[in-house]
Amino acid sequence: MSLTPKTPHESLTIQTHLVMPNDANQLGNLFGGQLMAWMDEVASITAFRHCGNVAVTASINNVSFTQPIPLGSYVILESKVSRAFKTSMEIYVDVYLETRDGNRSKCNEAIFLFVAMDEDGKPLPVPQLNPVTTEEKKRYEGALRRKQLSLILSGRLKPDDATELKKIFVPLTQ
Amino acid sequence: MSLTPKTPHESLTIQTHLVMPNDANQLGNLFGGQLMAWMDEVASITAFRHCGNVAVTASINNVSFTQPIPLGSYVILESKVSRAFKTSMEIYVDVYLETRDGNRSKCNEAIFLFVAMDEDGKPLPVPQLNPVTTEEKKRYEGALRRKQLSLILSGRLKPDDATELKKIFVPLTQ
Amino acid sequence: MSLTPKTPHESLTIQTHLVMPNDANQLGNLFGGQLMAWMDEVASITAFRHCGNVAVTASINNVSFTQPIPLGSYVILESKVSRAFKTSMEIYVDVYLETRDGNRSKCNEAIFLFVAMDEDGKPLPVPQLNPVTTEEKKRYEGALRRKQLSLILSGRLKPDDATELKKIFVPLTQ
Amino acid sequence: MSLTPKTPHESLTIQTHLVMPNDANQLGNLFGGQLMAWMDEVASITAFRHCGNVAVTASINNVSFTQPIPLGSYVILESKVSRAFKTSMEIYVDVYLETRDGNRSKCNEAIFLFVAMDEDGKPLPVPQLNPVTTEEKKRYEGALRRKQLSLILSGRLKPDDATELKKIFVPLTQ
Amino acid sequence: MSLTPKTPHESLTIQTHLVMPNDANQLGNLFGGQLMAWMDEVASITAFRHCGNVAVTASINNVSFTQPIPLGSYVILESKVSRAFKTSMEIYVDVYLETRDGNRSKCNEAIFLFVAMDEDGKPLPVPQLNPVTTEEKKRYEGALRRKQLSLILSGRLKPDDATELKKIFVPLTQ
Amino acid sequence: MSLTPKTPHESLTIQTHLVMPNDANQLGNLFGGQLMAWMDEVASITAFRHCGNVAVTASINNVSFTQPIPLGSYVILESKVSRAFKTSMEIYVDVYLETRDGNRSKCNEAIFLFVAMDEDGKPLPVPQLNPVTTEEKKRYEGALRRKQLSLILSGRLKPDDATELKKIFVPLTQ
Repeated sequence: MSLTPKTPHESLTIQTHLVMPNDANQLGNLFGGQLMAWMDEVASITAFRHCGNVAVTASINNVSFTQPIPLGSYVILESKVSRAFKTSMEIYVDVYLETRDGNRSKCNEAIFLFVAMDEDGKPLPVPQLNPVTTEEKKRYEGALRRKQLSLILSGRLKPDDATELKKIFVPLTQ
Repeated sequence: MSLTPKTPHESLTIQTHLVMPNDANQLGNLFGGQLMAWMDEVASITAFRHCGNVAVTASINNVSFTQPIPLGSYVILESKVSRAFKTSMEIYVDVYLETRDGNRSKCNEAIFLFVAMDEDGKPLPVPQLNPVTTEEKKRYEGALRRKQLSLILSGRLKPDDATELKKIFVPLTQ
Repeated sequence: MSLTPKTPHESLTIQTHLVMPNDANQLGNLFGGQLMAWMDEVASITAFRHCGNVAVTASINNVSFTQPIPLGSYVILESKVSRAFKTSMEIYVDVYLETRDGNRSKCNEAIFLFVAMDEDGKPLPVPQLNPVTTEEKKRYEGALRRKQLSLILSGRLKPDDATELKKIFVPLTQ
Repeated sequence: MSLTPKTPHESLTIQTHLVMPNDANQLGNLFGGQLMAWMDEVASITAFRHCGNVAVTASINNVSFTQPIPLGSYVILESKVSRAFKTSMEIYVDVYLETRDGNRSKCNEAIFLFVAMDEDGKPLPVPQLNPVTTEEKKRYEGALRRKQLSLILSGRLKPDDATELKKIFVPLTQ
Repeated sequence: MSLTPKTPHESLTIQTHLVMPNDANQLGNLFGGQLMAWMDEVASITAFRHCGNVAVTASINNVSFTQPIPLGSYVILESKVSRAFKTSMEIYVDVYLETRDGNRSKCNEAIFLFVAMDEDGKPLPVPQLNPVTTEEKKRYEGALRRKQLSLILSGRLKPDDATELKKIFVPLTQ
Repeated sequence: MSLTPKTPHESLTIQTHLVMPNDANQLGNLFGGQLMAWMDEVASITAFRHCGNVAVTASINNVSFTQPIPLGSYVILESKVSRAFKTSMEIYVDVYLETRDGNRSKCNEAIFLFVAMDEDGKPLPVPQLNPVTTEEKKRYEGALRRKQLSLILSGRLKPDDATELKKIFVPLTQ
């Protein structure tokens, strides 16, 4: 598999759904667990498209549910790689609601981390990412901050080494 | 709802899947019934995007299965309106297999007919279609022929009135 | 496996269902995709019963949805081989609604084509069909016409060779 | 709804399945819970066919699993009313495996008790049953014994009043 | 695997559910078949916890449904071994409804028989059971009676050899 | 509904599963999306048990997948409230693998935020939490830090007001 860098657009993956009773909770809204299942599926396809190998979910973060999505809604999931590390990829999944006049409003978002694997479960190197649009660049930069945060919170990084995070908090004291 | 004509691209609907055990038959290939369920879902969203109303499946035709799709495959469904009639829409669903180097091959195709409905189940007028690409134009023209065929086969049209079909067979005798 | 001809009744397969929320679309009616999944399952069992081997779906045609089937309905699927070709079988699936006084009304119909396969995916010969009832004979005869149509529409048969179809249209010009 | 007695055959309900990965447990055999779901569905349709009303499961007994049913098996469920009481019906579900030469072997059996209900959940009278075949008569007679057993075991009947059961055990002491 | 006797508490298995549309029948109540599937899953885990091996369902008995469980209910399944025989285990599954003030009421019960298996499907010996609470002891004693009943009803035991059952009925005549 | 404070143990919710083919991805391991669906269900029951009202998912964070969970595994989900805010509750879901000798190893973890709702979707006050064990106290304290982080990352809190987070980073510069 070539390790030539790719753009986020090359891994863009789309899944469009009509919310059916099968997908709903007892309130008649899209069940959070079903949405997570769809998100995980599109994110895993995005990972495959970026690295050309099977990749497995390492972590999920920042899944936000801003509004209930009622039965009969039209829902679009879009996922793209937001940053590639050595063997892992950060992937953003954006979820939109579409109305009958074709307008979209964002209703959910989640950030996944996938690791590329060979057949024996050993991590594999992945192509680097070249962000293009303004939003892609912003997410690319935030990815390092998010990675450090996650390592600090799990005790695998000392706050003093979290260079990106220190940039946010340290100026406050000066 | 406005009845301004639309292009096929305006109703393009995409659903990308990774084939999981849940989707497979006893041979380890994508189960035909599951594929049909996905096709019906994307086609119904395409219908909604074209006409801005709920639409229900009236018939399905020409579903072809050219090759088995094994577990673990990456599958893309794309659907577009191919022709709009008075209250109904013909919709093409194309299904592609994607390999790890990003290449696609077509593996299935189906043609749906949807009817737009108001809340009492009464048919509603739908916007007309302006085909743009060569393939869209070819499908647009074929749609009338397919409609006549279906009407003849169900006994609701006399062969003599099937103007489009006669163009195929009648020259043969001259 | 013996290739002794069989009657349609020998492959008759029945599946009776109560439509539950799990099977419904957002309007509270049986979801077309779920019905297709049931149809594909019974048709594949009919194919197995006719040829004694695993058979895979090659195409689906003429699926008609004449009326919505509401939640709580009692639905009966019946499938039978309508014609056997060299390695393929045409199969009719009829779907009925049953009311509380035991009456039935037909609500759907679909025509499947299955191909018998050995374990390496190579087509296998299938027993011929001896239709018995009037309807079985009518469907048997129509099968050849439907096969030619499908071959013409997919560009694999020249209209001039479609002997059965020419019988419908050619007389019109004489 | 008429309360004219019915034969078991009038409520015969058939559901034929091909066991798919979706239906299997971790050993690759039909999952007991899935089989129970199918059994409950056909039994509820049998109850509806006998009494012409919605009926709900009151109890399930004597479900036996004599052999594992591997993935890819062809399975037939058949259910019939075996005895009608005042507002309840005992229903037998027999499950068969079918081989490629068309032979059947019985692999499971279950006995359901359903109660007919009006829309407020109040029990409704049901038609009586006229058993016809030898097996239907045998099951009809056993039903009373099973009902007494179930009432004794749940403490709702005194052994001394279990006339049918006493016939089995009491002679032993004389 | 050690055959040291175990208490029922060592195999206690809990599964808590919120009843969603996916789990409901056409009346908006928990579908009996879905409940059976959950019961079978927890009972199989209880069997595994008792014997340390895979175990398969041999029979299910005394499943009672005392009240409908509406959509949106909170349901708790608890299963424990009630008696161990040579290679089989009787398992009780109790189902409770929980209200918003934290109160529980029992709504279902079922008795399963599981057989421990090695990889070739040969029965394996299982640890014996030491019941501790009053209810555990009562169920332990009843288990032998239930086993004899089941053997008599299936014709595999003569009434005269059913020592436990004779204790119920025989005194009646003296 | 009383707003008397509760302990984490009062909202403890358990769901035990045997991983079946239905739950697996194409590699034969538990599909991340299925695990998320189970997690969301138990967390929503925990929320209900703490506040006595329906509660909806507001966000999910820190879902970590440390190892693949193969088909046939025994999995236990346990969820408890880790901190209550005004109308929201932070909930920890811990996932364990159980081996045949009864040992457990932790394989996943996720942190949910649920908001209590009345029937019109308006947030409702929830009881406060009194943590008891050492781990419960540690999670209780971390909850405020996690909340501030989440508000900063979404731009709804200025770093200067994130009192808890500043305690981590600011000392570094002094």
